[in-house]
Amino acid sequence: MAHLNQLLENEVFMAFTSYATIILTKMMFMSTATAFYRLKRKVFANPEDYAAFGKEENAKKYLQTDDRVERVRRAHLNDLENIVPFLGIGLLYSLSGPDLSTALLHFRLFVGARIYHTIAYLTPFPQPNRGLAFFVGFGVTFSMAYRLLKSRLYL
Amino acid sequence: MAHLNQLLENEVFMAFTSYATIILTKMMFMSTATAFYRLKRKVFANPEDYAAFGKEENAKKYLQTDDRVERVRRAHLNDLENIVPFLGIGLLYSLSGPDLSTALLHFRLFVGARIYHTIAYLTPFPQPNRGLAFFVGFGVTFSMAYRLLKSRLYL
Amino acid sequence: MAHLNQLLENEVFMAFTSYATIILTKMMFMSTATAFYRLKRKVFANPEDYAAFGKEENAKKYLQTDDRVERVRRAHLNDLENIVPFLGIGLLYSLSGPDLSTALLHFRLFVGARIYHTIAYLTPFPQPNRGLAFFVGFGVTFSMAYRLLKSRLYL
Repeated sequence: MAHLNQLLENEVFMAFTSYATIILTKMMFMSTATAFYRLKRKVFANPEDYAAFGKEENAKKYLQTDDRVERVRRAHLNDLENIVPFLGIGLLYSLSGPDLSTALLHFRLFVGARIYHTIAYLTPFPQPNRGLAFFVGFGVTFSMAYRLLKSRLYL
Repeated sequence: MAHLNQLLENEVFMAFTSYATIILTKMMFMSTATAFYRLKRKVFANPEDYAAFGKEENAKKYLQTDDRVERVRRAHLNDLENIVPFLGIGLLYSLSGPDLSTALLHFRLFVGARIYHTIAYLTPFPQPNRGLAFFVGFGVTFSMAYRLLKSRLYL
Repeated sequence: MAHLNQLLENEVFMAFTSYATIILTKMMFMSTATAFYRLKRKVFANPEDYAAFGKEENAKKYLQTDDRVERVRRAHLNDLENIVPFLGIGLLYSLSGPDLSTALLHFRLFVGARIYHTIAYLTPFPQPNRGLAFFVGFGVTFSMAYRLLKSRLYL
């Protein structure tokens, strides 16, 4: 176990652990937001989900798509599309021995940008609020990928 | 290589490796399930996919959406949305030196809940079967996130 | 930090880092491809996105779905569904001490197959081009999962 403790004494890795856990936890709450709006708006994706609410003849009503629910779904999918590269590239970047302050700058910008992206998507704020938040997160991940490939390319 | 072997002698990490591989392999079979139902129901998302089946004039028929196919798609997306946080948080949790029996309890509950979720979604079982399976998996990931942040927060 | 440097002197892990970063960067460009086609075709998912282009009464026109945009979205989602298992299983496989040449074969085939998949999806090439590319990537990930579980199963 000695070297595992050593890994967790590495400050960059500990910082990555904290920020990755925070942003993944935020993403998980998008599922509960979808469930919340589905119940509030009474709009479901599956017949078995509205069984408690009413009879078969109301199927058409309950199976509609709803703007609010679809908006949460899109925000969730956008999270997935952006957080997966951050997780993969960020983990490898953290293990590549970067400067602590540079790494912290990357992690903080990404997490801040994605939280702002969710708020801008769900409120919604006028563009380019959401677009800028997306590009900050995108740029941070791209910058980590560039640093990794520049120093560690092995094909 | 010495310390890599050490990492793989760590029982929590080996257990995480096994359970993560099993649940990811299960998720991969959702792709083949989608392909199976698309071919069986002859319902496709792209014109080039039904080229072997018939002529252009049948496009409308082949490009319909189908309840069965859409159900598998939703189960697959729900897997992605839940397995990505489990992978990220679970990996970091495994490296944080948790108690072996606590870690095994988390991994087994998650994998069991997600397999039950898929069965409940595709059969489908009446609610709240699927909902409960979802919340067990969600709770397990949340519990690992909480333990990580409580012991290792570094912002 | 000694053992972190050791980790990065491990050739399999360095190779995984390079290939995973490349394929995740490729996936990130699917987001920009979607944005490009949305702007070019003037087809948006959210009312706030076309506010700069025109008035409310054109909402119906701007909120249509477009074949080209939906095709990029499907390619992106297919990437997510396949790259997530590769990332998780590939990382654990890299740490399990595999033979360098075997590992390189896996990584190169996967990255090549997924790049070809994207080209075949977006052009589009007639089937079975895309289908074969999908199954090569699927087979590579499955082969890594099998090797992991055969040598490291701990339940």
